[in-house]
Amino acid sequence: MTIQNPTSATSTTPVTVIGLGLMGHALASAFRRDGHPTTVWNRTAAKADQLVADGAKLATSPRDAVAASPLTVVCLSEYDALRELLAPEALDGRTVVNLSSGTSAQARDTAAWVAKHGGSYLDGGILAVPEGVGTAEAKVVYSGPREVLDQYEPVLRSLAPDNQHLGEDHGLTALHEAAFLAIMYSLLNGFLQGAALLGAAGVNVSSFAPVAAMGIQVTTGWLGAYAEQIDNGEYPVLDATIDVQRTAIENLVRESEAHGVNTDLPNHLKSWTDRAIAAGLGNSGYPALVQLFRHPSTPA
Amino acid sequence: MTIQNPTSATSTTPVTVIGLGLMGHALASAFRRDGHPTTVWNRTAAKADQLVADGAKLATSPRDAVAASPLTVVCLSEYDALRELLAPEALDGRTVVNLSSGTSAQARDTAAWVAKHGGSYLDGGILAVPEGVGTAEAKVVYSGPREVLDQYEPVLRSLAPDNQHLGEDHGLTALHEAAFLAIMYSLLNGFLQGAALLGAAGVNVSSFAPVAAMGIQVTTGWLGAYAEQIDNGEYPVLDATIDVQRTAIENLVRESEAHGVNTDLPNHLKSWTDRAIAAGLGNSGYPALVQLFRHPSTPA
Repeated sequence: MTIQNPTSATSTTPVTVIGLGLMGHALASAFRRDGHPTTVWNRTAAKADQLVADGAKLATSPRDAVAASPLTVVCLSEYDALRELLAPEALDGRTVVNLSSGTSAQARDTAAWVAKHGGSYLDGGILAVPEGVGTAEAKVVYSGPREVLDQYEPVLRSLAPDNQHLGEDHGLTALHEAAFLAIMYSLLNGFLQGAALLGAAGVNVSSFAPVAAMGIQVTTGWLGAYAEQIDNGEYPVLDATIDVQRTAIENLVRESEAHGVNTDLPNHLKSWTDRAIAAGLGNSGYPALVQLFRHPSTPA
Repeated sequence: MTIQNPTSATSTTPVTVIGLGLMGHALASAFRRDGHPTTVWNRTAAKADQLVADGAKLATSPRDAVAASPLTVVCLSEYDALRELLAPEALDGRTVVNLSSGTSAQARDTAAWVAKHGGSYLDGGILAVPEGVGTAEAKVVYSGPREVLDQYEPVLRSLAPDNQHLGEDHGLTALHEAAFLAIMYSLLNGFLQGAALLGAAGVNVSSFAPVAAMGIQVTTGWLGAYAEQIDNGEYPVLDATIDVQRTAIENLVRESEAHGVNTDLPNHLKSWTDRAIAAGLGNSGYPALVQLFRHPSTPA
């Protein structure tokens, strides 16, 4: 569908997308699908071909891209590239929503830089794979001024039906994202360890995935109680003591050894229970380990 | 409720529970709640006090405990203790369901040992915390002869409504459990890293738990596709290349450093992407990493 006269469509808002990697492409497609006049820019212009064929407008420079819409969504693999790309003089009166991954310090610095040049800034994080963008499963979290999110929420809803404001501090998205990445990659690596183990014993990994998903769901159900213990600083045993849990992890190490698969992850898990027991936490519940996660690593 | 005449209740079956740790206690309670005449034994007899007050019978020895019921459920923290406790002469014609955690080799050895003495054996694993036993959330997986599970499934359903038979090989439960432990402890440690990080920035962990749960759900949704790639041995990019994912993990490392929390877990995650890139997998999808998880660790 091509919007002939964007100004007549009150529910659409011109939007620019800068950065057309897998995710940026998905973002631009989602805006297009909902009829928002979409301008795109990418360092390698050919990546815009399909979007342009679908009706998006290709800007000839990042400056023109930002000028084309009140709202610019940026999705780059390197956060630092944002300031190199965006011309300061184009930012006045514009809103930049940055969905690139970065640190909380980068987000706060970028917000200050955009503000200095007269623009508004939101930092955001996408909890979805590119194919999930624009579907009911997607969720996006934002940090920065609430009123800016409220203003553009009708457009941003094209990316995900569920938008959450984490707070006014621009660094909160990056911080939550980092916390989530810790969980996500830990979970994925745990799954790969399990897959390697089952594969070595001739078990089809696809038949394990639903069992794993069930177990993850059970584990996820504990996190609320874990969080409460951590916030309260008291760690009564809910499931099993850390002593008992180390025995379980030792079985994982032994099973991995017996099947000739990598033992780095199992030994990494074991190292945490070893440290906890050395710190006198053997009779505590597992969340007591957070006390060790809070301390800087000791140089090897 | 006290069962006055167990033999008149056709839906109940006498059952023995050996090992009354947190989990064993929960198992015995669940059998009792459903009216199954329950005999218990524990090395420290006092741990049976509450169960006896509720109507369970305390056996004076493991041999008497096994003799009291056609079905004995064992839940010990150390798998090896099972053979020390169970008198071989009491096993003839009895069924032992072992819910203790162990390795697949231990499960196969124990099955052979029970069979040698005329008994039947199932190895099982509980996907629940003690308080979850007997609720709709609990799930138990079993490996060993299907007909033995079928025979006792009506009793075992007191522990969980959902019982899954993994296969005839007695080692399959331990193997799946090890795979699951890899996921579970990875996930929990990832959460603790996130909790430490958010806590260092003054964010309440309880407010992060639901966001984390949402993200875990999204991540879990990818596992089917990951499993398929692993089973097929082909790793097209679904979300982002390993190169791009390393950038995200580097942000986690930097964020952890900036907030003065432990960086061992972030650096462990980073080490996997570093190794993958060194192995030429930088342009592959994340599940390609399974190839590294399959190889024994190289001595440091």
